[in-house]
Amino acid sequence: MKSVAIIGASGYTGGELLRMLSVHPEVEVTEITSRKLDGQPVHKTHPHVRDTGLVFRDKKPSEIDADLVFTATPHGASMKIVPDLLKTGAKVVDLSGDYRYRDTAVYEKWYGMEHTSDAESVFGLPELYRDEIKKANLVGNPGCFPTGAILSSFPLVDNDLVDRIIIDSKTGVSGAGVSPSGVTHYPNIGDNVNPYKISSHRHMSEIQQELHGFDDVKVSFTPHLVPVNRGIQTTSHSFLKEEHEDITPDEIRKLYEKQYGKEYFIKLMDEGEIPHLSSVRGSNFVHIGGFEIDETGRLVMLSCIDNLVKGASGQAIQNMNILLGLDETLGLRHLGLHP
Amino acid sequence: MKSVAIIGASGYTGGELLRMLSVHPEVEVTEITSRKLDGQPVHKTHPHVRDTGLVFRDKKPSEIDADLVFTATPHGASMKIVPDLLKTGAKVVDLSGDYRYRDTAVYEKWYGMEHTSDAESVFGLPELYRDEIKKANLVGNPGCFPTGAILSSFPLVDNDLVDRIIIDSKTGVSGAGVSPSGVTHYPNIGDNVNPYKISSHRHMSEIQQELHGFDDVKVSFTPHLVPVNRGIQTTSHSFLKEEHEDITPDEIRKLYEKQYGKEYFIKLMDEGEIPHLSSVRGSNFVHIGGFEIDETGRLVMLSCIDNLVKGASGQAIQNMNILLGLDETLGLRHLGLHP
Amino acid sequence: MKSVAIIGASGYTGGELLRMLSVHPEVEVTEITSRKLDGQPVHKTHPHVRDTGLVFRDKKPSEIDADLVFTATPHGASMKIVPDLLKTGAKVVDLSGDYRYRDTAVYEKWYGMEHTSDAESVFGLPELYRDEIKKANLVGNPGCFPTGAILSSFPLVDNDLVDRIIIDSKTGVSGAGVSPSGVTHYPNIGDNVNPYKISSHRHMSEIQQELHGFDDVKVSFTPHLVPVNRGIQTTSHSFLKEEHEDITPDEIRKLYEKQYGKEYFIKLMDEGEIPHLSSVRGSNFVHIGGFEIDETGRLVMLSCIDNLVKGASGQAIQNMNILLGLDETLGLRHLGLHP
Amino acid sequence: MKSVAIIGASGYTGGELLRMLSVHPEVEVTEITSRKLDGQPVHKTHPHVRDTGLVFRDKKPSEIDADLVFTATPHGASMKIVPDLLKTGAKVVDLSGDYRYRDTAVYEKWYGMEHTSDAESVFGLPELYRDEIKKANLVGNPGCFPTGAILSSFPLVDNDLVDRIIIDSKTGVSGAGVSPSGVTHYPNIGDNVNPYKISSHRHMSEIQQELHGFDDVKVSFTPHLVPVNRGIQTTSHSFLKEEHEDITPDEIRKLYEKQYGKEYFIKLMDEGEIPHLSSVRGSNFVHIGGFEIDETGRLVMLSCIDNLVKGASGQAIQNMNILLGLDETLGLRHLGLHP
Repeated sequence: MKSVAIIGASGYTGGELLRMLSVHPEVEVTEITSRKLDGQPVHKTHPHVRDTGLVFRDKKPSEIDADLVFTATPHGASMKIVPDLLKTGAKVVDLSGDYRYRDTAVYEKWYGMEHTSDAESVFGLPELYRDEIKKANLVGNPGCFPTGAILSSFPLVDNDLVDRIIIDSKTGVSGAGVSPSGVTHYPNIGDNVNPYKISSHRHMSEIQQELHGFDDVKVSFTPHLVPVNRGIQTTSHSFLKEEHEDITPDEIRKLYEKQYGKEYFIKLMDEGEIPHLSSVRGSNFVHIGGFEIDETGRLVMLSCIDNLVKGASGQAIQNMNILLGLDETLGLRHLGLHP
Repeated sequence: MKSVAIIGASGYTGGELLRMLSVHPEVEVTEITSRKLDGQPVHKTHPHVRDTGLVFRDKKPSEIDADLVFTATPHGASMKIVPDLLKTGAKVVDLSGDYRYRDTAVYEKWYGMEHTSDAESVFGLPELYRDEIKKANLVGNPGCFPTGAILSSFPLVDNDLVDRIIIDSKTGVSGAGVSPSGVTHYPNIGDNVNPYKISSHRHMSEIQQELHGFDDVKVSFTPHLVPVNRGIQTTSHSFLKEEHEDITPDEIRKLYEKQYGKEYFIKLMDEGEIPHLSSVRGSNFVHIGGFEIDETGRLVMLSCIDNLVKGASGQAIQNMNILLGLDETLGLRHLGLHP
Repeated sequence: MKSVAIIGASGYTGGELLRMLSVHPEVEVTEITSRKLDGQPVHKTHPHVRDTGLVFRDKKPSEIDADLVFTATPHGASMKIVPDLLKTGAKVVDLSGDYRYRDTAVYEKWYGMEHTSDAESVFGLPELYRDEIKKANLVGNPGCFPTGAILSSFPLVDNDLVDRIIIDSKTGVSGAGVSPSGVTHYPNIGDNVNPYKISSHRHMSEIQQELHGFDDVKVSFTPHLVPVNRGIQTTSHSFLKEEHEDITPDEIRKLYEKQYGKEYFIKLMDEGEIPHLSSVRGSNFVHIGGFEIDETGRLVMLSCIDNLVKGASGQAIQNMNILLGLDETLGLRHLGLHP
Repeated sequence: MKSVAIIGASGYTGGELLRMLSVHPEVEVTEITSRKLDGQPVHKTHPHVRDTGLVFRDKKPSEIDADLVFTATPHGASMKIVPDLLKTGAKVVDLSGDYRYRDTAVYEKWYGMEHTSDAESVFGLPELYRDEIKKANLVGNPGCFPTGAILSSFPLVDNDLVDRIIIDSKTGVSGAGVSPSGVTHYPNIGDNVNPYKISSHRHMSEIQQELHGFDDVKVSFTPHLVPVNRGIQTTSHSFLKEEHEDITPDEIRKLYEKQYGKEYFIKLMDEGEIPHLSSVRGSNFVHIGGFEIDETGRLVMLSCIDNLVKGASGQAIQNMNILLGLDETLGLRHLGLHP
């Protein structure tokens, strides 16, 4: 049994780590920390996690003793504690934005703060960077929107087919986190659709990093809050380069099959089949479909993930499995909760 | 008092006509027809419409005696009865797709049936065609998606600013009509987002007709069903023509103010203000916002309408007011049901 | 035209007063106050209320000049300002709990504060106290749960048929007000049902006051938050007194018809017809149904109201109409927003 | 590895059996049958169940070869095939109502059909009948409402504390099954609360059977459809017998602890803690809370289950584990999907 600790375990991603690790056969959660919940049993905050004996503790990084640590801390807070955690010999999966960027200048522009850590990290999208993750000590776990957006469009840019991608995403409200606000007040969400940060969401920079924008491809992104608890449905509208305007949906599908055919967590939909949030709800799977081209040369790709699982804690566990040398799918094989 | 009849009054658009006309000061509903509900009191089908004394009747067009008739009949059925209704001297507002197209070949392609009526009609978007409607006897009431899409993008094409528009719309489920199906089964919609007809919805042709596509502008459209009863939220992603790439959001807003500043039912949002479905729920108002341009030269415009009101029955009443020479806003001044 | 002012107009009940009064033919809103929103145009808070010119002002009661004032202020705050408002000569409809109780000791027990005002008030349920309201200067507008609960059970206690009533209510989240909290955080409400204050909600005391509890009838009440924006669905489980255990559903229905037959806003459902929230959504109507007795002698009654309309602002306008000598239904005749 | 077959696997309970058994370590699904889907791969119907190789087959009972068979067939259909399945030597868990009743006359009254099978069965509520199930070949899996209702009130009747129980339940729409109808049409459910069969739902008879009604206790039941996919929230209003009217909430809690303290799947909430559907969503857990007595001597108990799991397929797997001599919790240890 490997031991893992969760720093900042009071939010939804902490709860999801606890939920999924509770049935992981090779790993035990030995520590959960929270400054403001110090001394409180876990089920007072995560009511589905009962009879574990776990109690939140307020601990310093240097006091943590675990094989692997998840930092479910806010942007900016992670980079202040990760270096100390690495010094304890633990491997670290960071769920904040702090370790996702190759170029810290991009981080500083979009997150509005100085980047003060030089710990080396890998972008934790195993389907693209599995080999690098195996050798790493620190993984920057991808953002929720980027996970759905990158996976659904990567073969297009990797094969140089398109020069523009518009990503129109619809997210469940759990993506806004556990803290209430006017934005997440039920009457503002129920029976409503709320676009936000329509031209300047910071996840755009993470998507651009992975989809070769701006150099080769113009990548745009607009997110919408929909009355859904969990899940991100992404519709990608791409424009074929002139030299590829005769490519068929079938040829595009073949490129996706080549890229993802052996991936346990990625499922390509049948022709005409639409991916649904319910099919991946609560699971680490990614459903990708679309593969249609309209009369204007626009290619439509679709993807669905659970924002808290493949978009956060599930992917973090997938990264943990790789870092600890375990089977990558351990603890993550449960199917989506349809309906 | 003017008398109006509603042919095919058993669906949601029929219910909405009844709801709004019940407080219209100059008009009285004197007939409602339905073949299958013949003899049934209206409240058995529309439980909110009580104590009116109205009963569904199965009547032929020639038996209808009214100043104005709404045909809330299916595509294909309308064109079989509208000519006879016009012969009775009534003015007609048709809520189907049958009389929306200038070129019947486009209709025949997208609706998959022969167009057999040569009655002259006007496309019933009063904000664009008010003068034509005044002189008409027959109005083809616009589709729900087209209403939100056209109004939010028209000033862009009218001023020749953009060469491509991607319309990504999210609609409430009442848009699918009153008949249950697997698509509208609650567990398939609740906590879900369902794109459909992602590259080939027939409303695309109606939007193209009004937005000058394909000649000048490439117009694409993808609709999504969201867990909402009413409303269409439209996000338009447009690309500025090279010669206009220096235009500012403020200059664009001014063009919208010029176009819509005097329109009772169109409200332009403040800078940074997002339109919400709840603000127009149950009302005939259109809220338009967005006015942001990102680093890739993409312009984002947003609109919200109630699909059953401005997207159907409210607009039909607006057209009725114009056709009958009444104040265009009569019976339609109630505000949206926020929250 | 009569002038009205709204004190504390920043919440949902304020927004609803503005929405409905905007189409009231005999009344004009001339003042809206809010301490914290002083100087802000109304649409920044109520985005559906546009182009009115109304601006929030921070005003003292003595500075208000209106024929009638709505106090949409919190419990405890109302009784501090209502006496001064009455001194200006205005009539007052108070939407808080402060003026609903005949016995201030009951108020003090359930609201946990001293009752310091001796202004005389009438309980503002027009269907029961119309004549008293006509003569009053101050009306205590009923609570949302009590409105649905009292109207659906009053004929039972008035005719002395039952000795116990269990009221199990399901409310939309707008009933919790405009301020966000953990309770109203979307992920805590969406796809969930949350009972609360299961044996001690203070509206129980208001229901008891009107339903003759505890003296003659034992009245119990449990509310539940459901994933709904607006509306209160009430299921009343009553037990027939031994001497009435042979009464038939039809005889009970006749008693309701006698009580409510001439009431504009109360609709009795047909036999077997279930009242639905959607039928009254946004409207001042009350739908009452049920009228079934099971094998254990339990009588089931059902009612639906919109908590913000008949349960708050609509009823307040109904009271206003009566206080000002206007037709009681003015501005309130619009039907429910089904679906 | 034990082999199991699912007869009638096209519905939600079939999908749930497949979902949960896909991660069961000791059992393999070897057959799934459906008359109308014969030859179709499973993921065309259950889109979350992919890459299993399973294909629906139209098979006779005698052709089934499995250690255990789930019959997820309609009421009436099960009793026609279960005897033949038992003859193959398989153990059977029937998810219909056919084998739940000790007295077939009660079945015939409430299900409106003759009961034609004399196969001996046990009521499959393991927390009450574990020992009987161990020895059985055929288990009648309890209904969804009865599971939540019986477990939350059993200690009350077993200890003879109450003489009347009113069960007011709120169910997610998946309980209505996979077939669309007007009842489950999204616009009829969204933003709505729909009581149904308010005095005569047949699950009442199943609840009465287990809660000693009518002999000792009067049990009433009213279900409501709420805009939720999964889950049943049950509020039980009970009346203490005169001789027990001084019992305290604490004493009642102790009786529940005595009854359920060692049950893996039953969790008793802390004092003042409300059970939530989200805490058990997708899981086999039952959360029970309430334990409050109001001034009228009414005791309020609350429970939450997932109607498709503990209320159907999860409990069926729990029964399967017992019948096959496996650890009762195998494949069922995953926690609820909060939020």
